[in-house]
Amino acid sequence: MIRDFFYPNSIAVIGATANPKKFGNAVTINILKNKGLRENIYLVSKGTKEIEGKKIFKSILDIPNQVDIAIILVPSKIVEAIVEECIQKEVKGIIIITAGFGEIDELGKIIENRIAYKCKNAGIRVIGPNCVGIQNNEIDLNASFIQAAPKGNISMISQSGSFACATFYAMEKENLGCSKFANIGNNIDVSFVDILRYFNDDQKSKIICIYMETINDGKEFYRILSNIIFDKPVVILKGGKTEYGMKAASSHTGAIATNYKMLKTAIKQAGAILCEDIDDYILALKAFSLLPLPDGEKIGVLTNSGGSSVLFSDKAEEYGLKLAEFSTDLLQKIKPYLISLVKLVNTLDMIGVAEEKQYYQITKAMLEDSNIDIVVPCLVVPPFLEMSTSEHYRGMINAWNDTSRKKPLIPLILMGHNFKKIKALAIQENAPIFYTPHEAAYTIKLLIERKMKAKQKF
Amino acid sequence: MIRDFFYPNSIAVIGATANPKKFGNAVTINILKNKGLRENIYLVSKGTKEIEGKKIFKSILDIPNQVDIAIILVPSKIVEAIVEECIQKEVKGIIIITAGFGEIDELGKIIENRIAYKCKNAGIRVIGPNCVGIQNNEIDLNASFIQAAPKGNISMISQSGSFACATFYAMEKENLGCSKFANIGNNIDVSFVDILRYFNDDQKSKIICIYMETINDGKEFYRILSNIIFDKPVVILKGGKTEYGMKAASSHTGAIATNYKMLKTAIKQAGAILCEDIDDYILALKAFSLLPLPDGEKIGVLTNSGGSSVLFSDKAEEYGLKLAEFSTDLLQKIKPYLISLVKLVNTLDMIGVAEEKQYYQITKAMLEDSNIDIVVPCLVVPPFLEMSTSEHYRGMINAWNDTSRKKPLIPLILMGHNFKKIKALAIQENAPIFYTPHEAAYTIKLLIERKMKAKQKF
Repeated sequence: MIRDFFYPNSIAVIGATANPKKFGNAVTINILKNKGLRENIYLVSKGTKEIEGKKIFKSILDIPNQVDIAIILVPSKIVEAIVEECIQKEVKGIIIITAGFGEIDELGKIIENRIAYKCKNAGIRVIGPNCVGIQNNEIDLNASFIQAAPKGNISMISQSGSFACATFYAMEKENLGCSKFANIGNNIDVSFVDILRYFNDDQKSKIICIYMETINDGKEFYRILSNIIFDKPVVILKGGKTEYGMKAASSHTGAIATNYKMLKTAIKQAGAILCEDIDDYILALKAFSLLPLPDGEKIGVLTNSGGSSVLFSDKAEEYGLKLAEFSTDLLQKIKPYLISLVKLVNTLDMIGVAEEKQYYQITKAMLEDSNIDIVVPCLVVPPFLEMSTSEHYRGMINAWNDTSRKKPLIPLILMGHNFKKIKALAIQENAPIFYTPHEAAYTIKLLIERKMKAKQKF
Repeated sequence: MIRDFFYPNSIAVIGATANPKKFGNAVTINILKNKGLRENIYLVSKGTKEIEGKKIFKSILDIPNQVDIAIILVPSKIVEAIVEECIQKEVKGIIIITAGFGEIDELGKIIENRIAYKCKNAGIRVIGPNCVGIQNNEIDLNASFIQAAPKGNISMISQSGSFACATFYAMEKENLGCSKFANIGNNIDVSFVDILRYFNDDQKSKIICIYMETINDGKEFYRILSNIIFDKPVVILKGGKTEYGMKAASSHTGAIATNYKMLKTAIKQAGAILCEDIDDYILALKAFSLLPLPDGEKIGVLTNSGGSSVLFSDKAEEYGLKLAEFSTDLLQKIKPYLISLVKLVNTLDMIGVAEEKQYYQITKAMLEDSNIDIVVPCLVVPPFLEMSTSEHYRGMINAWNDTSRKKPLIPLILMGHNFKKIKALAIQENAPIFYTPHEAAYTIKLLIERKMKAKQKF
């Protein structure tokens, strides 16, 4: 049944309004952008006369046709009455966006429990209340009041709507995107586990990510997580890990935050990726979206900047990564491209004079070397010798393309955030850029761990 | 004498060339940009006839006037001979940019030691070899082959030239800047300690930062560090902390990397800030450049996004920070601006409807509250209700300005990297933006620790 929320044949928006300062307007506008569904979207409002040329119904009961999903945006006081109308209309699912229930006080909790009970008896699933809604990019459905996520193959469950907004901003920046998204708010019925189970079955969801503050059915969560993990990476960020965080979370979703230590153990045991901050969460999504998994763990490093390879090497060791020993074969291959000052060791410091040609040839030689599983070309964009700002990056990416992207390429462009040409090339080529040693080393760690987990399936 | 390197009256560039593919050209071009010194810059070259209309001398000995600083860019084989000419010319200091000495092999080490010995006997100080040079933004002097740093009040010593490039890129991005910069390469004479001592005396150097891979005179370094620290924050990043890092560093500057644990203890004991990655290093510079120190450690948090304040609270507790209890007085002040759904606690979740007005009024009330020392307005830029992308940030900054910026303001714009209007406003107002909970919480930790250190002076 969860599938019906994401692939509905008809939708009613109850509490639609033409006032652009209301969430009821935001959801209506977002949902009407869907051209395929437009004929089967019904707007319900007591006061509004017309929105974007669409007829307005006074009640969901006035709609002549079947309604799959009802989205409720009316004030909290009348939500329960509207839910009863939805039950009468025999909808398949309800999304209650309105806030002001269990997250506010005991009365709110009582009302939301009553709503859950009534819907359960009627066999109707409920998402919310106090949520931003859901999205399905596969059919251009944005049934929420936030911006549509960029398109991609990640599916996300978030217990915070604004966290989802922030993630979408980051995805846009990193050229990543979503297949499906759900914010389930106070989750009085549809739970993390329900959504997770659906994303597991869904072929379009290649990577799953979760922002959670609390979990009700921990055991079931663990069980489903342990199953998914062999097929799809699951990336998790937990809010409310500490006393302070829990306090902030309880005023947010009205939830008592789960004991973090236990959860941490369970998540790690299941084999999911638990991140410690939002930037690592985005990094993990980037890793699994843009890079293949490595066959082994031996890393080859080249650089035009001693400092960058020193700092990367430090992080590599801190994260338990392994640098390769260069074979004689490899050394013979790369020597012709290097000046005599260059020491033929891993990490290979080609010094500041290295140009596109060196980056292309050496990266390619390492990618082709059977003794190297992962290649890290480090770069500080040279501000001298009339070099172009993007040539070195182009060299790396061409080498990656010419070896069919079989191995992970981890371009570390130290603090090169502001080089627009490099960014443009990365987007055009659907290739990653990492800007700090942590970003590069952490990504490699995730890829190696994921490979080990994926292997266990067989 | 170190001052003469930064404020020379005359400079000779030995190994100047018109070939834009040579470092000798990059240094010449950079140095000739200085209009005040231009008449007293002498170019020395065997082959070149003219560069930018400047006469070329065959030898430094042909220059009719006194030369304060000689910058050497000739091939390594003839560096020693050129140094002897400089000694004969009685220059005050020599910067050897040429590489290929102790960092390459034993012979190189012997030669560089001989050069050091000869110069010492002549009373001449030497920077390098194997360095990118030095800069002094106070007199627009870029005596290096890398780009001029953006202008500011930070002075930097870096054992890696390319690390300096990367730092300058990051400074540009963060609207920070340098007063002076030195890369001392193999430091056969002028050491970290010499430069550090000079930056300590220099009134224009308000913040000092160091990228180091090795240190020769550890005790003296500790002594000078312990003295500076009461007046100026010193921010340190150490490359070569691990076996891998040390190996990479030894092929880089020919140095045996220092035992990190001992160094770490010494640096912390001295009261300097030791960062674990380049992004934290930049964060520290940002903290001390853009923010006042707090009088106490009590933090007030407001937000339009539960997720952002939950994640910030987690990091705050992890870093040992303290959230304030709101006083009745404060609650009375802020209540009129908030909708009834808002729970009046710290962290204050004003929910997604909060606009510029709320951000201005609540931030201001917290900044004026005697029970709060640091204010953290969190924000996820709302993609709805026709709000402008920069209005909330403007509200925070106006509140900060209207309270004379007496307390640190830590705007956490979760993953808002791509909002150009916010960035433009930050640059215009010389105000900070933080994008992740780590960035915000780490910055506060640094400010509090620094305050405690600065207090000890009295």
